[in-house]
Amino acid sequence: MNLQKNIAILGSTGSIGRSTLDVIARFPDRFRVSYLTAHRNVDLLREQIERFKPRGVVVLENCHASVLKKLVNGATEVLVGEEGLCEVATRSDVDLVVSSLVGFAGLRPTLRAIEAGKDVALANKETLVVGGEIIMNAVRKHDVRLLPVDSEHSAILQCLRGEEHHHVERLILTASGGPFRTLAKEQFHTITVADALNHPTWRMGNKITIDSATLMNKGLEVIEARWLFDLPASQIHVVIHPQSIIHSMVEFRDGSTKAQLGFPDMKIPIQYALMYPERPHAPYRRLDFSAVQQMTFSEPDLEKFECLALAFKALEMGGTATTVLNAANEVAVEKFLAGEISFSSIPRLIEAALAHYAPHHNATFDDIVRIDAETRQRSQQFAATLQDK
Amino acid sequence: MNLQKNIAILGSTGSIGRSTLDVIARFPDRFRVSYLTAHRNVDLLREQIERFKPRGVVVLENCHASVLKKLVNGATEVLVGEEGLCEVATRSDVDLVVSSLVGFAGLRPTLRAIEAGKDVALANKETLVVGGEIIMNAVRKHDVRLLPVDSEHSAILQCLRGEEHHHVERLILTASGGPFRTLAKEQFHTITVADALNHPTWRMGNKITIDSATLMNKGLEVIEARWLFDLPASQIHVVIHPQSIIHSMVEFRDGSTKAQLGFPDMKIPIQYALMYPERPHAPYRRLDFSAVQQMTFSEPDLEKFECLALAFKALEMGGTATTVLNAANEVAVEKFLAGEISFSSIPRLIEAALAHYAPHHNATFDDIVRIDAETRQRSQQFAATLQDK
Repeated sequence: MNLQKNIAILGSTGSIGRSTLDVIARFPDRFRVSYLTAHRNVDLLREQIERFKPRGVVVLENCHASVLKKLVNGATEVLVGEEGLCEVATRSDVDLVVSSLVGFAGLRPTLRAIEAGKDVALANKETLVVGGEIIMNAVRKHDVRLLPVDSEHSAILQCLRGEEHHHVERLILTASGGPFRTLAKEQFHTITVADALNHPTWRMGNKITIDSATLMNKGLEVIEARWLFDLPASQIHVVIHPQSIIHSMVEFRDGSTKAQLGFPDMKIPIQYALMYPERPHAPYRRLDFSAVQQMTFSEPDLEKFECLALAFKALEMGGTATTVLNAANEVAVEKFLAGEISFSSIPRLIEAALAHYAPHHNATFDDIVRIDAETRQRSQQFAATLQDK
Repeated sequence: MNLQKNIAILGSTGSIGRSTLDVIARFPDRFRVSYLTAHRNVDLLREQIERFKPRGVVVLENCHASVLKKLVNGATEVLVGEEGLCEVATRSDVDLVVSSLVGFAGLRPTLRAIEAGKDVALANKETLVVGGEIIMNAVRKHDVRLLPVDSEHSAILQCLRGEEHHHVERLILTASGGPFRTLAKEQFHTITVADALNHPTWRMGNKITIDSATLMNKGLEVIEARWLFDLPASQIHVVIHPQSIIHSMVEFRDGSTKAQLGFPDMKIPIQYALMYPERPHAPYRRLDFSAVQQMTFSEPDLEKFECLALAFKALEMGGTATTVLNAANEVAVEKFLAGEISFSSIPRLIEAALAHYAPHHNATFDDIVRIDAETRQRSQQFAATLQDK
């Protein structure tokens, strides 16, 4: 009997993709890498092809595909673009799709995978932020597993193991607070791109690192939790915990709270998602409590970290407001990374996108694609009016 | 359909007994108090009779029974002594027995309850310390639930909910460290009874409060955990956590750790044991993380707290060594509370009892009773030779 799961990793050259391959390499009898995909890091993708020998790979641009085809010399199928992503996410020789693309781009291939009956390990939180209702309906309809890879949602999933949904009082997402937790708001205009990319705990991609610095990442996680665990915003709280040891908690209605803890290593939640409900032994670094020394907690400052407040606001507005939030945030982060707007302008741009916005309810996939595109255009225009760089 | 559970509380006037009645009073449609028992606090027992109207009560001495019989005037059956305890623990109108007697006295009635097919909520940790193997064999044979009331074991039970036994790497019991955590060992001879009764976190009975000051309580909990969760001593660790917010943890073999947290209120684990697997809403004080501020951890100092080291030693010796440990400790605590020996002599007395002791394996109930009595006699004699008071 072949117990190997066939895996497609959408975004295998990013931080989560690379850690996923590390986990897979540890369990060669459990997993077979069927497909890998990269945005533009063809060199790393080529190394991954040599090591894991997938049946096929996807790159986003034709020019990269041409280069790669020559390199692999016919041994590996090379597909291109979003069409290629959707193709490999739905093929019959795939059991589980790891969705670790960045931003809105994750939505369509993830949805296609679910509709094709694939289990999904979800690292792309934007998928649920922009299309939570559509995704969760598809998960139920096609009876697949949607397993979170984010350390916070993995923590909550672990705390909920064996528990009843109606016993939950609230979810408590922990946040490191990012590199500007103790910086006065008056100093925020001085923040450089290099400052913002210097996260205190986790090494991650640029988009998520900036989102962590603005606390928008936590806001996106709140929205993701709302869909994954089917609880309203009023039952989802955020607490600042700079040591990032407790990855998140669940408070039950009998007054008991459960937490999941660990040394900050993404391989632990990735393995949990790939192996669920198994917990095979792995030698990831254990918590040494005599070294931990202390854990501290505080409430997030919503006046200072306006992006988190905006995420709660969008969730409260409902419908496609979170699609707008995400599109405006993606534009804002791109423009900040490109040096076109200041750190303080990120929430300004999102606030402008949400102002006077009337959300659509029961939106279709096409509605979401359209609203995303419209918001990006509006946000580009608004950014051009900002005087700050 | 009558969904009420009929409860017998062995030791209803103690700290756990009173908290148990508080929990029961909150859910009158779920519980019926059938029997209550007291050592000598007849006044409080009489109040409890008036409030909860049990069918019967037990007191340990005939003189107290006579007083009580006049007071209750035939409305409530009054039984006497250990025989009375065993009688009410096994009656057909009892579904669940709360075992909250103090010390070795808990063993026989708890075993009888299990043999009579009753579920047991266990607060009397000495029962498992002295007769763990016999008790667990009886639990399996009679297919009853043995649910821990101790906050540490309740925490572990909650963390294990939905998990597989073979996924566990180790249990991590937290300990407040007691009132002498930061006191130099050289000062231990100056410790008075009043000092030792002043526990920093929990309000409890005298025996357990002294055990908390010597860390023997944690040692007894390690032994209890060994039986409740069927894991060897090598997989049970103790960590000092003075804030008593994390009540205990489970580390899994995939590197993930789960913890149960809460405001220190015994009603939370008591309710969990009484209601398991339900978690009905209760308004016990929630953790306020902005008020928690910090949690700290350190390794226990086994040179300073010799009782904890002795407990691990007895567990390693196996068989009836833990029966001896417990008997010697009970004598030592009594003598310390009576002002007859110093705080520093508590481990001396236990050490003497374990020295050159050859444990019995597969001991019967009668063996345990005999070894307990012999050890008490030896410990009394040894105490008389101590020159320290």
